[in-house]
Amino acid sequence: MNDAAPLAGLRVIELSSYIASPLGGMTLAQLGADVIRVDQLGGGPDLGRWPLAPSGRSLYWAGLNKGKRSVTADLRSPAGRELVAALITTAGIVLTNAAPRPGLTYDDLRERRPDLVYARLLGHRDGRTAVDYTVNASLGFPAITGPEDHDGPVNHALPAWDVACGLYLAVGLLAAERHRLVTGHGQRLEVALHDVALATAGNLGYLAEAQLCATPRPRLGNHVFGDFGRDFATADGRRVMVLVLTTRHWRDLVAASGLAEVMAALERALGADFLREADRYTYRETLGGVLSPWFAGRTVASLDGALGSVLWAEYRDFGELVQDGTLRDSPLMGELAQPGIGPHLAPGPPLVFGGHQLPPRPAPELGQHTDEVLGELLSMSTTEVARLRAQGVVGE
Amino acid sequence: MNDAAPLAGLRVIELSSYIASPLGGMTLAQLGADVIRVDQLGGGPDLGRWPLAPSGRSLYWAGLNKGKRSVTADLRSPAGRELVAALITTAGIVLTNAAPRPGLTYDDLRERRPDLVYARLLGHRDGRTAVDYTVNASLGFPAITGPEDHDGPVNHALPAWDVACGLYLAVGLLAAERHRLVTGHGQRLEVALHDVALATAGNLGYLAEAQLCATPRPRLGNHVFGDFGRDFATADGRRVMVLVLTTRHWRDLVAASGLAEVMAALERALGADFLREADRYTYRETLGGVLSPWFAGRTVASLDGALGSVLWAEYRDFGELVQDGTLRDSPLMGELAQPGIGPHLAPGPPLVFGGHQLPPRPAPELGQHTDEVLGELLSMSTTEVARLRAQGVVGE
Repeated sequence: MNDAAPLAGLRVIELSSYIASPLGGMTLAQLGADVIRVDQLGGGPDLGRWPLAPSGRSLYWAGLNKGKRSVTADLRSPAGRELVAALITTAGIVLTNAAPRPGLTYDDLRERRPDLVYARLLGHRDGRTAVDYTVNASLGFPAITGPEDHDGPVNHALPAWDVACGLYLAVGLLAAERHRLVTGHGQRLEVALHDVALATAGNLGYLAEAQLCATPRPRLGNHVFGDFGRDFATADGRRVMVLVLTTRHWRDLVAASGLAEVMAALERALGADFLREADRYTYRETLGGVLSPWFAGRTVASLDGALGSVLWAEYRDFGELVQDGTLRDSPLMGELAQPGIGPHLAPGPPLVFGGHQLPPRPAPELGQHTDEVLGELLSMSTTEVARLRAQGVVGE
Repeated sequence: MNDAAPLAGLRVIELSSYIASPLGGMTLAQLGADVIRVDQLGGGPDLGRWPLAPSGRSLYWAGLNKGKRSVTADLRSPAGRELVAALITTAGIVLTNAAPRPGLTYDDLRERRPDLVYARLLGHRDGRTAVDYTVNASLGFPAITGPEDHDGPVNHALPAWDVACGLYLAVGLLAAERHRLVTGHGQRLEVALHDVALATAGNLGYLAEAQLCATPRPRLGNHVFGDFGRDFATADGRRVMVLVLTTRHWRDLVAASGLAEVMAALERALGADFLREADRYTYRETLGGVLSPWFAGRTVASLDGALGSVLWAEYRDFGELVQDGTLRDSPLMGELAQPGIGPHLAPGPPLVFGGHQLPPRPAPELGQHTDEVLGELLSMSTTEVARLRAQGVVGE
């Protein structure tokens, strides 16, 4: 077993689409698990999801299925479902966001494989559908996102709930499989997208704050809640995010800007102590107003090394990341020759074991491993697979 | 071993603060692991982080450390560090976002415990600091978040990178521990917040799009990229998010709104086919304009059941979640008697094993388990712990 691939030996059958469930499977595949994504003949509903490459192929699908194997079968036919059930029985682990078809429910599968680990993603726990955008609308974040003077909700661009949910699925599946390693018992795991978002809002204190505190949290624009942090314009027409979380950060910011006298006078005038995070937050507009001219008089380059321990970064857009070397110079990124799309820089796993960065592996072509997987897991001969193909049970 | 707590038997020493690393530990604690957070005497830098309860205690700290045990020690003294090293040696797993102090580096600890699993969170991989807000600024998302007519970056409110990073830490730690269960070998795991964000941008196709496509993705306001989705105002002064991802969703939206003739005429006039997601996205302003009056003439309540398979949800704020029963009625949430804060509804784990929702468990009081843990893990008598306390090596 290779130290750099800690999940070698783990095998997962994935029946999934869109972001969360495929990301959960890919996260395991990137750590060495054999993850076999099974799709309906012709592909799932996410096969053509935007963004598209110039070739017309989905960059989204390719990005979320890297390093998996792909099998296609007719899940609408009893023979296709029997085949998938046999694969799951052999592999012993299934990851899915699909409504269970006949023969593929947890109870059906557990009868064939008593120690099955079955991980299922739901929208709402009661089975009602939900997606990242609807969950996000339901849970309050759009009401506190966006410019302070904006009226109405502001959606996030990042599908953060899908990402969190995919990672929770990977955590849960590994926890269940560990339990099986130790006790021999499998089990059913369910995760609802809505629950993941609600749990996160609770874990971060948003829900308790709404229950216990008289004043609701306002929409803060680019200000950071509870301390001093905001964006500033610089002399070269750029913007930087600047953030203070400790007294050391604050002292360094005051020293760097040469505004110690002004800050001391302000503290006397306001009866404030800017070594306290609460006072930095309360007087954020004042502090920002005092600091703005200092940033406006400096270029981003001149800030480099000038701010001590202060947390700061320049805002960049995705095009700039390609131009400025962020992608090229990152050890996370590797050149990936993705069939149907062409070479580009793609991320390997952000989990680095023993200092070894694993490179990105291409996503499969749809159905690419059908023959290989049926041969390997079910000992089917090429003749048997060819017969199933002629019957329309498995794909090209 | 209880089926509902799959990680029973796993023990983790956590040296951490803020969001990502504590969330990683809490995720394991919620699944039955014994997670012991060790803090400097008096608490870490996150002990008073906002939001605060009316009592002045941090809801953030309480929310992110539920179900752990708490030990305090003087990490600045050799005796305190020796104690923590002894705890880690016994437990065999450490999770940290702290810079390693003398005696607590990976190499130091591995000498004492050759099969150690050591999981460390970094800002940047090269050791430079980074936090959610600076990583977010660096990576392009603020440039495409917010109202279409807004100029300048818009930060997210949710610290999405911290959340993702905490979950990646939990995944990586479980993967490393599985590897140890199977092979007997421990290892060092590192995860950088910046890498997690960059990997996510890559996995979702944003980076490949910027490299391969001529047109950069625009700021889309509340529109969904690549299909038809946006927010609408309703007759009762509310807003709803409405989203179409499949032809079935589209057909149901057209049928519900009674606009089939208009849509067919539009398709002829524009040479478009709204069964295609690309055409729905291209003509999103037109489609939104046509559908707006229909939504504006209806209350949110009247939409319930009227939209068929269409994905939609009403926007709510955190205060409304408390009022409208979302928290009270959710099986995820349970009444938590949190010392120092008082009873409130808090989330249990969103990972549900065997259909059993585990309830939330309170966060510890700072240092609450010092005596208990030193007795249990290091077989120290109360007299010995009292002596260490008198010497200022461990906390109250």
